[in-house]
Amino acid sequence: MANNDDQFKKVISHAKEYGYVFQSSEVYDGLSAVYDYAQNGVELKKNIRDYWWKAMVQMNENIVGIDAAIFMHPTTWKASGHVDAFNDPLIDNKDSKKRYRADVLIEDYCAKIEAKIEKEVKKAEKRFGDAFNKDEFISTNGRVLGYQEKINTILSRMGKSLENEDLADVKALIEELEIADPLSGSKNWTDVKQFNLMFGTKLGASADSAMDLYLRPETAQGIFVNFLNVQKTGRMKIPFGIAQTGKAFRNEIVARQFIFRMREFEQMEMQFFIKPGTQTEWFKYWKEHRLKWHLSLGLGEDNYRFHDHEKLAHYADAATDIEFKFPFGFKELEGIHSRTDFDLKQHEEHSGKKLQYFDHEVNESYTPYVLETSIGLDRMFLAVFSNSLVEEELENNTTRTVLKLPAVLAPVKAAILPLVRKDEALVKLSKEIIEDLKWDFSVAYDEKDAVGRRYRRQDANGTPFCITVDGESLEDNTVTIRHRDTMEQQRVKIEDLKSIIKKEVDVKEWLMRM
Amino acid sequence: MANNDDQFKKVISHAKEYGYVFQSSEVYDGLSAVYDYAQNGVELKKNIRDYWWKAMVQMNENIVGIDAAIFMHPTTWKASGHVDAFNDPLIDNKDSKKRYRADVLIEDYCAKIEAKIEKEVKKAEKRFGDAFNKDEFISTNGRVLGYQEKINTILSRMGKSLENEDLADVKALIEELEIADPLSGSKNWTDVKQFNLMFGTKLGASADSAMDLYLRPETAQGIFVNFLNVQKTGRMKIPFGIAQTGKAFRNEIVARQFIFRMREFEQMEMQFFIKPGTQTEWFKYWKEHRLKWHLSLGLGEDNYRFHDHEKLAHYADAATDIEFKFPFGFKELEGIHSRTDFDLKQHEEHSGKKLQYFDHEVNESYTPYVLETSIGLDRMFLAVFSNSLVEEELENNTTRTVLKLPAVLAPVKAAILPLVRKDEALVKLSKEIIEDLKWDFSVAYDEKDAVGRRYRRQDANGTPFCITVDGESLEDNTVTIRHRDTMEQQRVKIEDLKSIIKKEVDVKEWLMRM
Repeated sequence: MANNDDQFKKVISHAKEYGYVFQSSEVYDGLSAVYDYAQNGVELKKNIRDYWWKAMVQMNENIVGIDAAIFMHPTTWKASGHVDAFNDPLIDNKDSKKRYRADVLIEDYCAKIEAKIEKEVKKAEKRFGDAFNKDEFISTNGRVLGYQEKINTILSRMGKSLENEDLADVKALIEELEIADPLSGSKNWTDVKQFNLMFGTKLGASADSAMDLYLRPETAQGIFVNFLNVQKTGRMKIPFGIAQTGKAFRNEIVARQFIFRMREFEQMEMQFFIKPGTQTEWFKYWKEHRLKWHLSLGLGEDNYRFHDHEKLAHYADAATDIEFKFPFGFKELEGIHSRTDFDLKQHEEHSGKKLQYFDHEVNESYTPYVLETSIGLDRMFLAVFSNSLVEEELENNTTRTVLKLPAVLAPVKAAILPLVRKDEALVKLSKEIIEDLKWDFSVAYDEKDAVGRRYRRQDANGTPFCITVDGESLEDNTVTIRHRDTMEQQRVKIEDLKSIIKKEVDVKEWLMRM
Repeated sequence: MANNDDQFKKVISHAKEYGYVFQSSEVYDGLSAVYDYAQNGVELKKNIRDYWWKAMVQMNENIVGIDAAIFMHPTTWKASGHVDAFNDPLIDNKDSKKRYRADVLIEDYCAKIEAKIEKEVKKAEKRFGDAFNKDEFISTNGRVLGYQEKINTILSRMGKSLENEDLADVKALIEELEIADPLSGSKNWTDVKQFNLMFGTKLGASADSAMDLYLRPETAQGIFVNFLNVQKTGRMKIPFGIAQTGKAFRNEIVARQFIFRMREFEQMEMQFFIKPGTQTEWFKYWKEHRLKWHLSLGLGEDNYRFHDHEKLAHYADAATDIEFKFPFGFKELEGIHSRTDFDLKQHEEHSGKKLQYFDHEVNESYTPYVLETSIGLDRMFLAVFSNSLVEEELENNTTRTVLKLPAVLAPVKAAILPLVRKDEALVKLSKEIIEDLKWDFSVAYDEKDAVGRRYRRQDANGTPFCITVDGESLEDNTVTIRHRDTMEQQRVKIEDLKSIIKKEVDVKEWLMRM
């Protein structure tokens, strides 16, 4: 765990140092849980978004996109259930005046018991040495079993109380466990109250006509309310999908883990409209299809796993997460949800309008079922970035830091390096190469420091190719192309550069791996 | 004017009918001045954004991008002047309870006098026939001169009062002119008050720690606060630019003209950081360079004009608009502003941090000057869309509606049409062609109705190429390719399709026209 913490810290500082992610408004000491994408980050984010859009929209004849506004009519959120049920249970400490998520206080308490189990395991490991069997120890040691039971009892009671909206019992549990405010140590708590996670604002200036609006907490509803307009004007036939990328906002009380959980974030969602009864087959299809998309990026098969939901949200009849191995463990990266006709029916009810599809094949109208794929763009960014950041031991006992981003996603595809920056002919030729390549992909010029140091800098920056222009280049029109991951160098003709690099960074070539 | 109104109505209804723009939350009877981009609109918008990004960032070695969050630290807006000065002067009618922009009420009053001038002109034109000289008439006719003087007097008094924040005089002017509420006819007005255009919200749940936030009213400040981090981590040397696209929000009281002025809109801005004293040369450079970008799209040179500002904003020492001929007349499409060091200095003052650049060439530190190019993505969309929508008289006395979008921006590049949809072999070959082309650009399949009708549909949809697959295709692997604008048809080999179309739709080919 300590190692992972270290790795995570490295990820965060590397993201800042190499112009990927800055804290928002850093000059004003920052804004909590909000981040800005810097000069490299904006390109990586854009490339991920484009890779998703191309795979989902351009490659699928029956999927189209939309771009709905962040502002929506407030009844949308009444219909979707967000006004009534998109809440966190909060509790205030009367002495410190600090506010906490009640469930997180209880989970943190359980984490402390979990730590005791770990301690027992470590102690026993030391005592028994090679003969130690962890699984057996955990399943037979009395003290450990006691701790485990206590955790189970607490979490199950909390889960039940939250499900039944029995907030008084959540407070009772906190008091029984004698949980104290982690800052002040006080146990003087208020009642637990539900707090809605949507950000509110007001539209219009007139005192009597101002309208309470919300910043959308998810992009999905923008697709549902536009479903019929898209289907009709686009002459879509079921099954068909509508895809969208865009910002969403949640007023998270406990927002942490860098860009993993932010208050302002971006989603990439696709709602697939299907005939009722076919949801099981489409759930299976999209589960497999989305995993293939992830695997095409080559971050390693072992870093993904499915987590099927046992407890389902009120709108779902099946749900799974594609989890990714982040520096802080396996966590949700993408959700695939069979949402039934819940959302469309809700909008029908609240708008008084029919949102039905006339199916010519069976000659009847019905409200379609919906299969959703939903991925956090910022999480995907973090998955790619953290997985790519490695420190390699080299043969000469030095280490190099290299950001092994999939070449298709790298912000800068190639850096052009004149071997000697004071040699005007080399600089001129380097600039000519840039003038030629920049039409097809993003390139950078790097002339400062010895060439070895420039290689290291471009490695850390994630640039897949370095092109070195030297004296020989002036004579025979060849350059050295160095590959970031293997550090292999090849001598190639300048006229071949474009096609060599293009093949490695082209979206098409990568999507073919799906 | 009537014709232009008609044309604008056609633009709006065509945008809905062909899946370009829908009113937001239409199912809930809409949200005023907010729009959603539909299945074709999202692609057109994306293509415009990419065309700008590629021209500004990828093609310029010394310009990089960022993607700052919509949420920023609230002191940002204190420093930028938006908290204190981003206001509209509003007035309420006490009887109708309706609220108006005081300056718009006065301007509308002047527009009525303007209409009287027009009437005099028309009358005289009728009287004098061919001998009529409009300019001479206007500059000599006593009645017209009187009207003109009245307008000038009113507008100059209003301008002065607003500049001096003398809101009492703005009210006095409304009363003296006996301006009535256009809805109720009442002249019973409240005082004029300043109303801030920023949308507010609250971050965090704790009663004592909730922070008042604003939704950013412009993207520029996200660039200024990140200036030093980008410069340092990106090792940028002056002159250099930072570009950004993203949403901004303004609580406009009078939001109208479709997507021209929305409450939620998207900007494409670039801030170019320069050495103080060089702003005149860079102002000239960017004025010319940005116009070239517009002209490369081929919407017609006559549709653009510069409008240099005489009255400058407090932060600017020079400013011009690139105006475009919209259906409702020439209006601002893009602004080019010499912003001096106003913004960076303000952030230095409010943050207590230095935002200076050390210039190795002159061996000194200074606060850079800033040259800004700022374009509304939604306005650019409207410019392209409205300009492209034409009705053509054909030789056989019918008309066709065609959306002559620049091919590089068109949402769908080619539609594949089997001549007879019941012919399985034709359908199969059509699908094979799609499978091949879709890797390189967006294609559609269209099999319903007679082929002539499909051509018309694709014309109205803006698709530059139709590819018709017929019996001959099965024998000799050729198809007919039809060009949207000329309606010319060519017989070409299927294997040549990709390169023929690619050449016409490739961003590179279009940017070369700059």
